[in-house]
Amino acid sequence: MSKLYVVGIGPGAYEKMTIEAARALKDSDVIIGYTVYVDLVKDHFPDKEFLTTPMKKEVDRCILAFEEAAKGKQVSMICSGDAGVYGMAGLMYEVGVNYPETELVILPGVTAATGGAAVLGAPLIHDFCLISLSDLLTPWEKIEARLLGASQADFVICLYNPSSKKRHDYLQKACDLMLRYKAPETVCGIVSNIGRDQESMQVMTLKELRETKADMFTTVFVGNSQTKEIGGKMVTPRGYKNV
Amino acid sequence: MSKLYVVGIGPGAYEKMTIEAARALKDSDVIIGYTVYVDLVKDHFPDKEFLTTPMKKEVDRCILAFEEAAKGKQVSMICSGDAGVYGMAGLMYEVGVNYPETELVILPGVTAATGGAAVLGAPLIHDFCLISLSDLLTPWEKIEARLLGASQADFVICLYNPSSKKRHDYLQKACDLMLRYKAPETVCGIVSNIGRDQESMQVMTLKELRETKADMFTTVFVGNSQTKEIGGKMVTPRGYKNV
Repeated sequence: MSKLYVVGIGPGAYEKMTIEAARALKDSDVIIGYTVYVDLVKDHFPDKEFLTTPMKKEVDRCILAFEEAAKGKQVSMICSGDAGVYGMAGLMYEVGVNYPETELVILPGVTAATGGAAVLGAPLIHDFCLISLSDLLTPWEKIEARLLGASQADFVICLYNPSSKKRHDYLQKACDLMLRYKAPETVCGIVSNIGRDQESMQVMTLKELRETKADMFTTVFVGNSQTKEIGGKMVTPRGYKNV
Repeated sequence: MSKLYVVGIGPGAYEKMTIEAARALKDSDVIIGYTVYVDLVKDHFPDKEFLTTPMKKEVDRCILAFEEAAKGKQVSMICSGDAGVYGMAGLMYEVGVNYPETELVILPGVTAATGGAAVLGAPLIHDFCLISLSDLLTPWEKIEARLLGASQADFVICLYNPSSKKRHDYLQKACDLMLRYKAPETVCGIVSNIGRDQESMQVMTLKELRETKADMFTTVFVGNSQTKEIGGKMVTPRGYKNV
């Protein structure tokens, strides 16, 4: 039985990769991924064979990985962040039903939620939800129900894919839904290009977030009722007394 | 201005640490943490000074870190998993108000949710919530509201601190709440001792989870309505067509 690695490479910077992820890539003959992610690691593993497929060709990308492994090559399928958070690990298991001779080994990584949180301060110290605003694969009604449920239960909320060219007003729509249960003064933050050049962050209120433009390289954080700003950072208390 | 590192060391195994986390520990004079976490890294950094405080002495631990940094030493405060997920990063910012000459640098790590997900398969591929069942610092009513809200909105739910000696029936109570909105056949999974010796995992239904004993080294995953079992693994589909 051959092993195929599905590797979360972290937010972008090489040093934010885990030691085992770097080791798996070093041990691989072939590294497969979406073009943008391959560009992030290429310079660190110059002697590898790189194969890419574009966005919306995810099923083809998985088949390619299994076919290369079937040739006897050591293959790593890479994803940015964690391979198991909106990543390819799930689809690899689904496609893998047709390749029972290949065992998948999932290597976790730092996802944008925790990578971005570290830049903003400590927004995810208490119960939180991850919600993707992309309705490419999920009906908007489901996203809406999750935004409302999470806001009503006072979760910290981290939004992936907050916006794109076609969905330029989705972050605003999401803020309007969250504002039904969260105060306009709720402390929020955005991080762009986590762990890459031009990384930037900003702490603001939910009311201000509603008027903010985000792109597909931005991760958005909406605090719970206890979240506060400390020296320009976004911090959610865990609840320790006597601080 | 001196820098103090707050470092997520990942689930336990050295190779699941990020490259920058290992580098920060290597560059430190003093490594501070809860006794159990210090034991996880001690052998890899034998020449360091290690300082520990027990559970419930978290504020003292933070003060200790800032005081050591004030002496001119390079200090790393370590947490298991990610320092920003139920970790010390938040409290460090709160205590840090009294130490304005020290800058905190948060280094993210692989938290139990994504580390455990990689062992179980791919349960967190779609929107998910993290909820801690510990009511030591959070009123149970708040935890209950979050369990209900997350279940009703069909989130995948990952439970931290599912049980302890004093809270032996909390996982059962949580299952009863989730069963108000989630089907008894919902695919669930548990992982114990992620990335450590004796790591183990089990996939089961929500009905079976209700009858399962978990300890404080267990992380629990409850699927959404689409989560399925594929070859013994727990997999939540992202929604790609033509699979």
